[in-house]
Amino acid sequence: MSKERPTIADVATRAGVSKGAVSFALNGRPGLAQTTVDRILAAADDLGWRPSNRARSLSVSKAFALGLVITRDPEVLSSDPFFPAFIAGVESVLAHRGQALVLQVVTAGKDEAAGYRRLAQDGRVDGVFLSDLRHEDPRIELLTSLGLPAVTLNRPEGSSPFPAVCLDDRPGTIAVVEHLLELGHRRIAHVAGPPAFVHATARSAAFVSALAAAGLEPVAVESSDFTAAGGIEATRRLLALPERPTAIVYANDRMAIAGLGAAQQAGLTVPDDLSIAGFDDSELAEFVHPGLTTVRADPYRFGEAAAETLNQLIDGDGDVDVPDVELPPARLIIRRSTATPLLEET
Amino acid sequence: MSKERPTIADVATRAGVSKGAVSFALNGRPGLAQTTVDRILAAADDLGWRPSNRARSLSVSKAFALGLVITRDPEVLSSDPFFPAFIAGVESVLAHRGQALVLQVVTAGKDEAAGYRRLAQDGRVDGVFLSDLRHEDPRIELLTSLGLPAVTLNRPEGSSPFPAVCLDDRPGTIAVVEHLLELGHRRIAHVAGPPAFVHATARSAAFVSALAAAGLEPVAVESSDFTAAGGIEATRRLLALPERPTAIVYANDRMAIAGLGAAQQAGLTVPDDLSIAGFDDSELAEFVHPGLTTVRADPYRFGEAAAETLNQLIDGDGDVDVPDVELPPARLIIRRSTATPLLEET
Repeated sequence: MSKERPTIADVATRAGVSKGAVSFALNGRPGLAQTTVDRILAAADDLGWRPSNRARSLSVSKAFALGLVITRDPEVLSSDPFFPAFIAGVESVLAHRGQALVLQVVTAGKDEAAGYRRLAQDGRVDGVFLSDLRHEDPRIELLTSLGLPAVTLNRPEGSSPFPAVCLDDRPGTIAVVEHLLELGHRRIAHVAGPPAFVHATARSAAFVSALAAAGLEPVAVESSDFTAAGGIEATRRLLALPERPTAIVYANDRMAIAGLGAAQQAGLTVPDDLSIAGFDDSELAEFVHPGLTTVRADPYRFGEAAAETLNQLIDGDGDVDVPDVELPPARLIIRRSTATPLLEET
Repeated sequence: MSKERPTIADVATRAGVSKGAVSFALNGRPGLAQTTVDRILAAADDLGWRPSNRARSLSVSKAFALGLVITRDPEVLSSDPFFPAFIAGVESVLAHRGQALVLQVVTAGKDEAAGYRRLAQDGRVDGVFLSDLRHEDPRIELLTSLGLPAVTLNRPEGSSPFPAVCLDDRPGTIAVVEHLLELGHRRIAHVAGPPAFVHATARSAAFVSALAAAGLEPVAVESSDFTAAGGIEATRRLLALPERPTAIVYANDRMAIAGLGAAQQAGLTVPDDLSIAGFDDSELAEFVHPGLTTVRADPYRFGEAAAETLNQLIDGDGDVDVPDVELPPARLIIRRSTATPLLEET
């Protein structure tokens, strides 16, 4: 309000450009030469110009914030490597534009819908990221009815009005199975994620179809919950089978590392008695003993791409057709936890 | 703006209470009977009443949001069990009050100060959590000068105008050392966190003083960075010492689990040849082989307490003296990775 607060006009005068150019530069919109942008930002900096988001919000009905609602139990979330890296990627885009990330961690179905409603109706965010897509996901319809722009992480099963940023898990899963087949494994089991998640069943389906391509069936597919405790239980069930698997493919590293512990506790040597593969290439994967064969995605880049796409959608105000983005697929990282089975039992 | 939008007066009429009582109930302030609160919330729900945060923000100059700026490398953050659990605890308090959490992940010192400035000057948040306190932490002065209410996680070293929510790491660290001494260990080493962090040096100091109380000195104290890779390197240096330790106490579980892998890769049996203890009781601690002896804190409760305290400060508008909070200290969890040393080398 004070006269002393520098205005966009002051910045324009100092930089020798129009107010419109200043607005473009300060809002991170494309179209100006980089040297012009640099001059404007330097002028804004010299004058101590700061955006007033509250004023901006009122004038253009924008919150200058994006929302992420994570529907996971805090315990499941607390050592999941995906979200912190994804969030860091999102933040790297937002920081340049003076946007903020509003985060909600909710636990149940009802809380979740209320969370999105609140973000939309309070005008807290200009758009949201839709992660952990589920089968018949009710959030697509919810967000459509709320009129809230969104980007989905991977594609939902039904039709969706939102652009999708996609990282295909299947090639990595197929590569794991092919690696195990080449090593001579024929009795391979899978510990899957929760069947409600599209990404969990996509990995399971890729696992089954890669075995089928070699004329094989899985020893077993155990549904679990991505937690270490769930990984232990599923591993114990698999090791108790009359026809024990010689290799287990896990849908995430955490379950795989817990499974490694369970196998060692049962007196098995990994990889001689049992090969183990994970998914994520989380930080510990390289450092457990033996190092974990796994599949590496890039959640930081996933976050960057999702934020860029959501901003395109918001900037376009519905007038721009924002294309889907395909990220490079996850790829196999071979370490010591997989090897030729020592004894080919009959 | 529309007449159809239900007002606080409508809710008051329906619930048969005063507008003031509705305001109290909807803002989660104490002082009303729970039955009254329930009746008001039910009336608000029936009428489809929603707070307009933008209007609220203008009328009372509040953002109805709290901020958390995390200054860690994305890689370090990505499997740290503290922040997701802490955030879940914060969210559990915010959800009841219709507040949002604004999260920033920044990497460097300059970005960090800019992050806090932006939150304050854009009026995005009503207060912030100050985590990972450092020695001579510049943020205390920065936040004081910005006039932004804050709560520190543990106490800073100098004077601070902000209430502190404290979880004392020292009793847990001392308990680990005493447990190892009771098992017969005399050559004990420590892998510490980054010396810039107050919590890292607090754990180191507790480690050294617990040994000193038994008339012993540490074999070595290695500074590391809380990462698995750092844990591996520090472990290799310790195992290469002419007088190898029989036990290593790590400042977090991730370094300890990586150290366990390094020891096993070096041909050592844990715990016979080397006892290993961590700090956090992260999800994998129980499930690696052998299960990790560690120290358990409660970051979810830490988040709840920090959010409650910050809200007291904000609600009090500087007129209320908000006391520090002491949480129950972290405690020792004994598992299989620590035991009497097998061979007492001379």
